[in-house]
Amino acid sequence: MRLTPKVKEILSWYEAENPGVKTNLARLLMHGRLAGSGKLVILPVDQGFEHGPARSFAPNPAAYDPNYLFELAIEAGLSAYAAPLGPLEFGAARYAGEVPLILKLNSANSLAGGNVNDQALTATVDDALRLGCVGVGFTIYPGSDACYAMQEELKEIIREAKAKGLVPVVWSYPRGGKVSKDGETALDIVAYAAHMAALMGATIIKVKPPKAMIDLDAAKSAYEKANVPMETLPDRIRHVMQAAFNGKRLVVFSGGEAKGTEGVLNEIRQIAEGGGHGSIIGRNSFQRSKEDALALLDQVVKIYLGQA
Amino acid sequence: MRLTPKVKEILSWYEAENPGVKTNLARLLMHGRLAGSGKLVILPVDQGFEHGPARSFAPNPAAYDPNYLFELAIEAGLSAYAAPLGPLEFGAARYAGEVPLILKLNSANSLAGGNVNDQALTATVDDALRLGCVGVGFTIYPGSDACYAMQEELKEIIREAKAKGLVPVVWSYPRGGKVSKDGETALDIVAYAAHMAALMGATIIKVKPPKAMIDLDAAKSAYEKANVPMETLPDRIRHVMQAAFNGKRLVVFSGGEAKGTEGVLNEIRQIAEGGGHGSIIGRNSFQRSKEDALALLDQVVKIYLGQA
Amino acid sequence: MRLTPKVKEILSWYEAENPGVKTNLARLLMHGRLAGSGKLVILPVDQGFEHGPARSFAPNPAAYDPNYLFELAIEAGLSAYAAPLGPLEFGAARYAGEVPLILKLNSANSLAGGNVNDQALTATVDDALRLGCVGVGFTIYPGSDACYAMQEELKEIIREAKAKGLVPVVWSYPRGGKVSKDGETALDIVAYAAHMAALMGATIIKVKPPKAMIDLDAAKSAYEKANVPMETLPDRIRHVMQAAFNGKRLVVFSGGEAKGTEGVLNEIRQIAEGGGHGSIIGRNSFQRSKEDALALLDQVVKIYLGQA
Amino acid sequence: MRLTPKVKEILSWYEAENPGVKTNLARLLMHGRLAGSGKLVILPVDQGFEHGPARSFAPNPAAYDPNYLFELAIEAGLSAYAAPLGPLEFGAARYAGEVPLILKLNSANSLAGGNVNDQALTATVDDALRLGCVGVGFTIYPGSDACYAMQEELKEIIREAKAKGLVPVVWSYPRGGKVSKDGETALDIVAYAAHMAALMGATIIKVKPPKAMIDLDAAKSAYEKANVPMETLPDRIRHVMQAAFNGKRLVVFSGGEAKGTEGVLNEIRQIAEGGGHGSIIGRNSFQRSKEDALALLDQVVKIYLGQA
Amino acid sequence: MRLTPKVKEILSWYEAENPGVKTNLARLLMHGRLAGSGKLVILPVDQGFEHGPARSFAPNPAAYDPNYLFELAIEAGLSAYAAPLGPLEFGAARYAGEVPLILKLNSANSLAGGNVNDQALTATVDDALRLGCVGVGFTIYPGSDACYAMQEELKEIIREAKAKGLVPVVWSYPRGGKVSKDGETALDIVAYAAHMAALMGATIIKVKPPKAMIDLDAAKSAYEKANVPMETLPDRIRHVMQAAFNGKRLVVFSGGEAKGTEGVLNEIRQIAEGGGHGSIIGRNSFQRSKEDALALLDQVVKIYLGQA
Repeated sequence: MRLTPKVKEILSWYEAENPGVKTNLARLLMHGRLAGSGKLVILPVDQGFEHGPARSFAPNPAAYDPNYLFELAIEAGLSAYAAPLGPLEFGAARYAGEVPLILKLNSANSLAGGNVNDQALTATVDDALRLGCVGVGFTIYPGSDACYAMQEELKEIIREAKAKGLVPVVWSYPRGGKVSKDGETALDIVAYAAHMAALMGATIIKVKPPKAMIDLDAAKSAYEKANVPMETLPDRIRHVMQAAFNGKRLVVFSGGEAKGTEGVLNEIRQIAEGGGHGSIIGRNSFQRSKEDALALLDQVVKIYLGQA
Repeated sequence: MRLTPKVKEILSWYEAENPGVKTNLARLLMHGRLAGSGKLVILPVDQGFEHGPARSFAPNPAAYDPNYLFELAIEAGLSAYAAPLGPLEFGAARYAGEVPLILKLNSANSLAGGNVNDQALTATVDDALRLGCVGVGFTIYPGSDACYAMQEELKEIIREAKAKGLVPVVWSYPRGGKVSKDGETALDIVAYAAHMAALMGATIIKVKPPKAMIDLDAAKSAYEKANVPMETLPDRIRHVMQAAFNGKRLVVFSGGEAKGTEGVLNEIRQIAEGGGHGSIIGRNSFQRSKEDALALLDQVVKIYLGQA
Repeated sequence: MRLTPKVKEILSWYEAENPGVKTNLARLLMHGRLAGSGKLVILPVDQGFEHGPARSFAPNPAAYDPNYLFELAIEAGLSAYAAPLGPLEFGAARYAGEVPLILKLNSANSLAGGNVNDQALTATVDDALRLGCVGVGFTIYPGSDACYAMQEELKEIIREAKAKGLVPVVWSYPRGGKVSKDGETALDIVAYAAHMAALMGATIIKVKPPKAMIDLDAAKSAYEKANVPMETLPDRIRHVMQAAFNGKRLVVFSGGEAKGTEGVLNEIRQIAEGGGHGSIIGRNSFQRSKEDALALLDQVVKIYLGQA
Repeated sequence: MRLTPKVKEILSWYEAENPGVKTNLARLLMHGRLAGSGKLVILPVDQGFEHGPARSFAPNPAAYDPNYLFELAIEAGLSAYAAPLGPLEFGAARYAGEVPLILKLNSANSLAGGNVNDQALTATVDDALRLGCVGVGFTIYPGSDACYAMQEELKEIIREAKAKGLVPVVWSYPRGGKVSKDGETALDIVAYAAHMAALMGATIIKVKPPKAMIDLDAAKSAYEKANVPMETLPDRIRHVMQAAFNGKRLVVFSGGEAKGTEGVLNEIRQIAEGGGHGSIIGRNSFQRSKEDALALLDQVVKIYLGQA
Repeated sequence: MRLTPKVKEILSWYEAENPGVKTNLARLLMHGRLAGSGKLVILPVDQGFEHGPARSFAPNPAAYDPNYLFELAIEAGLSAYAAPLGPLEFGAARYAGEVPLILKLNSANSLAGGNVNDQALTATVDDALRLGCVGVGFTIYPGSDACYAMQEELKEIIREAKAKGLVPVVWSYPRGGKVSKDGETALDIVAYAAHMAALMGATIIKVKPPKAMIDLDAAKSAYEKANVPMETLPDRIRHVMQAAFNGKRLVVFSGGEAKGTEGVLNEIRQIAEGGGHGSIIGRNSFQRSKEDALALLDQVVKIYLGQA
C-alpha cells in the first residue's frame, strides 16, 4: 500500500531517522482501520505486572489467556498491541504479521514498597527483534529519585532500538520529587513530560490527559503571563502538543482507570479535537467482554477517523 | 522415545522458544517414572545455603554426601535434581545422563542480617552447560527492596539460558514491601508471583501452595467482585494456574517444612486435583531415611500418575 | 577559507590534539559573522530540560518549533547552536552544514528533588557524529555530592569525543559541598571552575560571569596576599582567563536570566574587555521575538568584532 | 614422581574439574615434605595488609624482606606459600619452581573503619598465572553486609581460576549479620562456613578451628536432636569435615594468634586426629626467629606425617 | 648511556616486571642531574585541582602558564614532572623528550564536601601513552570509607599501566577510618601506607615524612616491644624504608606546605640520611620565583648527590 500524504508528512518530522525506523513507523501508521489517517489506537496490556493478574483479568477471565489479547487487537483493527515479554512470546509466532507489536521493556509492580518510584527492565531490544516487533516501550518517572537513572536507561534503549530499526515509544509519567500527588496530571507537568520525552529522542510519546491545574510554583507565572488557554481538555491537549515540538512528535494519550463507555468516548473526542494523535486503551477494553470491547473500540476508531 | 501427545501439547505452549530449549524441556518431561505424563517431581537441595549443613542433613547424615542426593533422585525415578554448583560438580560426571540436572544459580543464607531480602549469584549459565544440565534455577523475591534488581538479573539469566538452549526455572517467592509476613502465601500473592514469572518469560514456575487469604488491600475488591473460589486448595491451585497464562505455563509447587507423610501426600493430592504440574520436594524427602524417602516419593509419583 | 592568524594562534594552544579535533575547532572559529576573529557567540537551548517547555518558550511561542531555533542561529550568523538530542535530530538534516552544532550530552530537570545536584546523560558522542556536530557539551557541578562521578563521566566523554575528532565543551557550574548558594558565582569559585575544566582537558570552557566576592575561606588569604584585582568585571574576567592556562584555553560566558537589552550588552562589553572569548546566550535571545533577538545578537556580535 | 594412592583418591573427589586444575592440585599435594600424604601445611603472609608492617614483622625484622618468607617456606619443606601481589612479584622469579605459590587476591586493612566487613580485590587471576602460581586465595565474610557481594566476586574468581587451571582456596570467615562476635568460631558457624565454600565450588577451604558452642538459635535444636558430638576438638573437626561434602573437600585450619609452641602443636594434633587436611600457619611461624620457626614447622609436618 | 651499577641494583628489585616497565624505570633513573645516582627529585603540580588556581599560582603568577612548569622541571634538571591531563596535554608536544612525564590519574578538589575522602579519575593509562609519559600517578586514602574502592581502582591502574610498560607511582595518604587527623603522618601510619602500596605492586611510593607518634592503639605495643627507634627523622625514614620491602622499593617523600628554604633543605637532608630515595617538591618550588626555585632545587639535588 502506498503511504498516504498524511503519513508522509509525519515521516517528514523524523528526517534524521534511518530507513529502518521510518519503515517500522510507516508499518504502524499503515496498519488496521486507522491505516493512513495519521492516528493510532493501541492496546497495551502491562497491568499484570502493575496490578497483578486478578485485578487485571478477573473482570473478564477470558483475558487470562494471552491469545485472547492478540485476537482482541486484531479483530478490533487496532494499530498495535503492546505487552511485556511473556505474553508476546506466547503468541508472536501464532499471530505473526497480523498486528504490529510493541515490546514493553520495563515494568513496576504493586508488591514493591510504595516509595520506590522505579521499574525493572524485564526484556531487551533484541527480544523485540526476535519477536518481530515494530517498536519497544519504556516508562520513565520524571521527578522520581530514580529519574536520572531511568533517563540514562532510556537513552541506551532509544539508541539501541533506533540503530536496530525499531520505534521507541516512551511512557512519560512524572511522579515524586517536586511533583505533588495531585499534580501528576497537571497541565504543566504533562506538557513537561511530553517535552522531555521529545528532547530525549522518543518517536512516539505516551502521556495522560492533563487537567486544568499548574503544579510547579516556578511555572505558574509563565503560564499566567503567556495566558496559556487551559479551561477545556482540547485547550490543554493543544498545549501538550505544542510542547511536543509544536505538534511534530506523535503523542498518544492513555485512558486511565476503567470507566463508563460514554466517559471514555467523551474524553477521546476531546483528545482528537485538541490534535492528539491517538489513544492507548488498556483496562477500558480488555476488562469488558469481547463483544463490548469491540463495540467500544469501534467507536474510538470512528472518532479518530472523523466518523463519530 | 517418541513424545507423548501430552508432552507435545505442552511444547506447543512454548512456540517462540528455540529448538534447544524445546529439546531440554522435552528431556525433562520424558524422564523418570512420570515420563510423558506432563507432570514433574523434582528433588531440590539448596537448604545447605539457606539453613546450613546441620539443620539440613543432621536428621539423615547420609545426605551430607553429595552422591547420596544424586542416587535418591535416580532411584526414586524423579524428573530432575536441582542443586547449587558445588554438589552438582561433585557428581555430574559420575552420574552423567542418569537424571536431568537443574543448576540453582542464586542462594541466600541465614547468617546474613535478617532484613536483607536478596540472594547472591553463585554460579553461571555456562556452568550449567559445562555440567550437562537441562536447566537453571533462579529465585526472585517480588516485593523486597531488591526486587527490581533481582528481576533485572533474572532477565539476563533467562535471556542467556534460552539462547544457550537451557530451561529457566523461576522460584517466585514474594516477601517484603507491601507483602505481610503472613501474606507471603496468600492466594493473591502467590497468583501474582506466578503471573510475574510468566510475564518475564519463565519456562517453569515454582511457587508455594496458596492459602485462603487475600493480602493486598487493593486486590480484595477484585477477588470479591469476581467471586473467585478459594475455599479449597484445589480451588486456589486452579486460580494460580489461571494466573499462569490460563494454565499454559508449567507450575510446580514446593512442599515447605518437613511434615508427616499423610500431610505431604494430602497436599499433593489437592495440587494434582487443582491442575498443578507437579511438586518440588526437598526436606520432606532427603531428611527421611532413604527407605522412607523412596516410599514417600513412590506415593507422590503415583498421585501424579493418577494411580493413588 | 584560509585560517586567520588569530585562529592559527588559538589552534597552537591545542598542540596535543589530533587533526580531527583541530579541524572541528577551526570550523567553529571560522563560521558566522565572527569567523576568524577568535571570538565565539553560541546559541544554547537546553532550558526545555532545565525549566520545562512553558517557562522556556511561552514568552515567544514560535520557539516551541525546533526549526525556529536553527533559523535564529543561522540568521544571526552565530558561531554555533547547542541543544539536546531531540531538537538536533529534528533539524540536523534540514539545516545540514548551515551552522556548527554542539550536542549537549547531559541535562538536569526541575521536577527532580531539589537536593539532587546531578544530571542525566541523555545522548552519546556517537549521536553527535551521526548528526554532523562539531562538538559535544557536558555539565559538571564541582562541589556537589556527585562531583567526582560527574568528573569521571566527563573524563570518558572527553576521551571519546577527542578520539572521534569532536570538540568537548564543558559547562563548569560549581554548587553544593563547600560552595555557598551565593558563592556559586564568586570570583574564586568561577576561576576554580574554569581551572578544573582546563585540567580535565576541556577544549572550550563555559562559566558564569564572576562577581566581586571570595567564597572559600581557605582561598581568602591567597587573594589578599596576591592582591588580585577584582573590583570591575573586566578585572574578574581577566583573573578567570588567567586560571584558564593563562588565557590559552577558550572560555565563553553565559548570560544568565533574561534581562533588559542594555543590561545584556553592558555585561558583554565587559567580558570582551576582560579578554573573554565570547558569550553563550540562551534565554536572552530565544525568549525575545525573532526581530528583537536578531537586533540584540547583532549588537553582541559587533561588540566582539570591536565594532560596538 | 608418580601420584600416591592417597593423592589419586583426593583427585577423584574433584571429578568435574579440568586437567589444568587437577594438575595444579596434584602439584600442591606432591610438593615438600608432605608430598603424597594427602596433607598440606601452608605458609600464609597477608598480615601486612591486615595488621600493618610493624605488628607483623617487628618481632622478627628479617621478615620485612620478602625473600625471607620464600626461603622460610622452602627450607621448611612446606606445601605452599600464600601472599598478596607485591611480595610474590618480588620473589617469584628468583624462587621460580621451588615452592608452590598461592596469590591472595583480596585483603582488608586495619585502618578502615571498624564496621566495614569487606575486603578489597588487590590482584587478579591473570596475575597468578603470570607469576607461576598453582592457585589463588580469596576471603569471604558470610554474614557481613557485604556477604552477597563477596560471594558474587568469589563466583567470578572461582570460575576464572578454574577455567585457567588454577586451584581456588577460600578463606571462609563468618562475621556480622546474625553471627555474634563470640560465635565467629562456634561449631555451627564454622561448619556452615566450610559448607558454603564447598557449595560455591571451592577446591580448598580454610576455616578456623571451631569451639564447643552453637551460635545460631535456629540451629540449636538440630544439633541437640541429632546429638552431634562436640566436646573435644577432634569431634568438632569431624563435624566440620562432614559439612565439607562428608570429608571429600580439602579443608585446612588456620592457627590464629601467635602462641606458645606447645599450644600450637597440641591444637594441630587434634586437627589431624579429627581428619583435617592440614594447617595454614602464619604469625606462629614468621614471627619466630628462623631457627625456632623451622623447628616448630618440623614438628607440625611430623604430626601430619603421623611421626609425632 | 650505560646504566650505573646503582640503577642496575634498583632494577634487580623489580625482577618480575616486563622489559617495558624496566625501560621506563631506567629512563626515570637515568634522567637529569641525578641520573644514575638511584635518587629522584620530581616536580608535582596537582594543586590546581586540590586547592584551586589562586591558592596555587597567585604567589608566582608565571606558574599559571603550563609552559612555565615544564621549563622549571627541565631547567632544574629534575628527574620528572608530574601533573594532571590538561597541563601535560598543553606542553607534551612542545617539550617532547626533554623531561620524563608522569600523568596523575586521579584528583580531589576542595569544593567537594569535607567528609568525602575520595578522588575522581580524570585521565587514563592510554592518555599517558599518548602523551609520551614514563609513568602514571594514583592516590589512595587508606582508612577512608572509599579505601577499598580506591584500592580496587589502583589494582586496575597498576595492572594496565604495567601491561603497557608504564611505571605506577602511588601517592599513599591515609585518612579517615581509624586514623586520627593528627595521626595521618604518625610513624605507624606512614609505614603502613608505604607497606600497603608495596603489597599492591607499586613501583614507586610517595608518602609524607613521618613524625614521632604512633596513632593506632593496636600498634603501640608492637612498636614498644620491638623498641623501634623513632626519635629522629632519619630513624623514622629508616623504619618506613624497612616497611617498603626492607628498602627494596623506591620511596619518595613529599615536602608538604610551603616553608622557608632552610626548613625544606633540613628536612631533605634527613630524608637522604635515612635512606629515602628522593623528594617530590611542589609548592616549595613553583610558588617561589623561578630564580629562587632553581636555587632551591639546585641545593636539593646536591643533597641527594651527596654534594651538600
